Amino acid sequence: MIPRDRRQDEDVPSGLAHHIRTARMEAFSDGVFAIAITLLVLELGVPDGSADDLLGAVLAQWPSFLAYVVSFATIGAVWLSHTAITEHLDRVDATFVRLNLLLLLVVSFIPFPTRLLAEHIAEQNAERVATALYGLTLLLASVLIAVLWRHAVRAGLVRAESTDEEVDILTKRLTPGLVGYLVIIAIGLAFPLAAIFGYGVIAFFFLVPLPGGRSGR
Amino acid sequence: MIPRDRRQDEDVPSGLAHHIRTARMEAFSDGVFAIAITLLVLELGVPDGSADDLLGAVLAQWPSFLAYVVSFATIGAVWLSHTAITEHLDRVDATFVRLNLLLLLVVSFIPFPTRLLAEHIAEQNAERVATALYGLTLLLASVLIAVLWRHAVRAGLVRAESTDEEVDILTKRLTPGLVGYLVIIAIGLAFPLAAIFGYGVIAFFFLVPLPGGRSGR
Amino acid sequence: MIPRDRRQDEDVPSGLAHHIRTARMEAFSDGVFAIAITLLVLELGVPDGSADDLLGAVLAQWPSFLAYVVSFATIGAVWLSHTAITEHLDRVDATFVRLNLLLLLVVSFIPFPTRLLAEHIAEQNAERVATALYGLTLLLASVLIAVLWRHAVRAGLVRAESTDEEVDILTKRLTPGLVGYLVIIAIGLAFPLAAIFGYGVIAFFFLVPLPGGRSGR
Amino acid sequence: MIPRDRRQDEDVPSGLAHHIRTARMEAFSDGVFAIAITLLVLELGVPDGSADDLLGAVLAQWPSFLAYVVSFATIGAVWLSHTAITEHLDRVDATFVRLNLLLLLVVSFIPFPTRLLAEHIAEQNAERVATALYGLTLLLASVLIAVLWRHAVRAGLVRAESTDEEVDILTKRLTPGLVGYLVIIAIGLAFPLAAIFGYGVIAFFFLVPLPGGRSGR
Repeated sequence: MIPRDRRQDEDVPSGLAHHIRTARMEAFSDGVFAIAITLLVLELGVPDGSADDLLGAVLAQWPSFLAYVVSFATIGAVWLSHTAITEHLDRVDATFVRLNLLLLLVVSFIPFPTRLLAEHIAEQNAERVATALYGLTLLLASVLIAVLWRHAVRAGLVRAESTDEEVDILTKRLTPGLVGYLVIIAIGLAFPLAAIFGYGVIAFFFLVPLPGGRSGR
Repeated sequence: MIPRDRRQDEDVPSGLAHHIRTARMEAFSDGVFAIAITLLVLELGVPDGSADDLLGAVLAQWPSFLAYVVSFATIGAVWLSHTAITEHLDRVDATFVRLNLLLLLVVSFIPFPTRLLAEHIAEQNAERVATALYGLTLLLASVLIAVLWRHAVRAGLVRAESTDEEVDILTKRLTPGLVGYLVIIAIGLAFPLAAIFGYGVIAFFFLVPLPGGRSGR
Repeated sequence: MIPRDRRQDEDVPSGLAHHIRTARMEAFSDGVFAIAITLLVLELGVPDGSADDLLGAVLAQWPSFLAYVVSFATIGAVWLSHTAITEHLDRVDATFVRLNLLLLLVVSFIPFPTRLLAEHIAEQNAERVATALYGLTLLLASVLIAVLWRHAVRAGLVRAESTDEEVDILTKRLTPGLVGYLVIIAIGLAFPLAAIFGYGVIAFFFLVPLPGGRSGR
Repeated sequence: MIPRDRRQDEDVPSGLAHHIRTARMEAFSDGVFAIAITLLVLELGVPDGSADDLLGAVLAQWPSFLAYVVSFATIGAVWLSHTAITEHLDRVDATFVRLNLLLLLVVSFIPFPTRLLAEHIAEQNAERVATALYGLTLLLASVLIAVLWRHAVRAGLVRAESTDEEVDILTKRLTPGLVGYLVIIAIGLAFPLAAIFGYGVIAFFFLVPLPGGRSGR
């Protein structure tokens, strides 16, 4: 899993032991992303004694399913942004690895507000709290992925082959989420359910391929 | 984990940063497949107070074990089809990565209908609902893996080395599941238990090696 | 994660698409091994209302901890045997991949009998059933890893560089477990607790490095 | 996932089959680290019937969140040390792989004392026991990572390219944790809550990049 990056070997042979290898950080991150996204299913369920009308009981759980899909889409979008970032990296530095751990902390936390949301969607006051907490977590993930990329650009970790245009596209791409989340958290204080759909919209926005960007020719 | 594909480097050196790397998508997918297939075990258990006749209590859970094995075989078969697809790929495009995320959504969802099925197998009405939901999930996974492959062929992602015959075999291989699942979901409305065996048969059909195909000399 | 095996590329360039790649099978297997071994911790816990004497409550759970360590050691030993096998492989065939899925089914099942054992260790009759079921699962894993290796040898999947002596050492190494498990399952019908220690002894036997064998110079 | 290490191939071509491959051990370890760090989220939750004051109920769980963050930081720090070690390795021997399994046993165990701590933080006596058990587990992980490195140095597994200075820095780096944990476990017997913060401080100390050391230029 840890093949030494051939390009790095050639460019900075003497510095190999001095910087942490990109490959293993990606492997570990992929593991955390994959587990967090798959653990979401453990939050799904129907109440005991649903046997008489199982179809009705399952359908009544639609907020759980909605939260499940939105969280899945969000983690998927963060993972996709993460791959877009590391694709442009020549190497990582110590700060990058720590910021990455912070991002993983937030990503692996997502199943908790998802569960809170699913459990309290029908309850007036709790619904508002759960939606806001959920939105704050997604906002934090979004902030950290943007910080990660900006650090990479500033610290000169980006590969020489990446054009300025590509770097700018990615920088822009990773920004609007912040504003979006803040707006939707505010909306959610009045209309919690609308907010969940809003979080879904942001995630799907990130999932839609860029024209001419990361999507290749 | 993310060694740059050597062949790609040589063919499309300038486009490296433009397309998402196949390797990391495979790593992430393998993670989700492995976790979904292993989480199934958490659904197994015996009711409290089974100590007096533990053997009887375990044996009485046979539908749980059946659902466990069928789900394991199905996820295993989807994983196997996934490896067969990516084996033929030269690169992936943005649409492929999104379709792949959709497939992973369905695969990571499988533990939920498996649990529903195991819990409600003896209850007349619920059994029917659970079996149909289970079958629909497996059908969806089957549809998505077929869609994934067809997209790869149409978008020209397949390696030049893959012969037309190999492509045709894989296309045919990935198709019959759809009809099979639809038939068995219908059967399951009348005979739920028979349907579970039917889902198992489909999975094992996919698991049996192709004569002369993927199985090599 | 799926770098094409360089040696294979050179030896059988035209057959690349015909056999399933070893690397991805190892990646998927490592995922299942890692998850199964880590899920074991979810079975640990103390009964509610243990706050008055938490130390006592934790210590009273010693059979759970014993089962945890034995299962961990067993999965670790199976993983180690698995790496020893794939280290000698030049390629895998379709049968090998299916046998490997069967092995993973058993490995990912281990948390269930571990939980049964931990829950019923103090209950006379149940203890016997749980210990036997536990032993049968470990036996099955042991049988399958031996079958996997024998299939690899017979089907000519072993690398040309591996000496006959190395192959023989590994074949012998993977055999005695079978007899050991059968003996201990029988003992366990009379003395369940002794059997758990016995399963631990087998696992540790597999974990002890071979003199002159896999352990290097 | 298991590309043969090119450097090793060139240095010790004939010994390839004789020593266990570093890559697969890293892959398996990364899997266990990633799962253990992500499973921590399953311990978080609010008591039933918290709907009336969900915000209050969440805030009242702050010790759970604290334990979550400290455990996350600790596993992250152990993972980081692990990457620092394997970065310097030329190969692994059989003893290293077994010591590594022992380390993974302790790492994958961490979610259990974390849960104990979160559940019993407000209860006078239990709090003390839980804090000590928690500290002992972290201490054990710390001891094992130090042992792992010392074994690697003594057994000559370190790459020729690593300077003595680098080796010394890492050796020193991995030592102070031991004393720190012992002091804090003792403090925790009198002031349990202070100890949790103390464990957090140790983890963050490990996470802070070394000036001139592992952090590169």
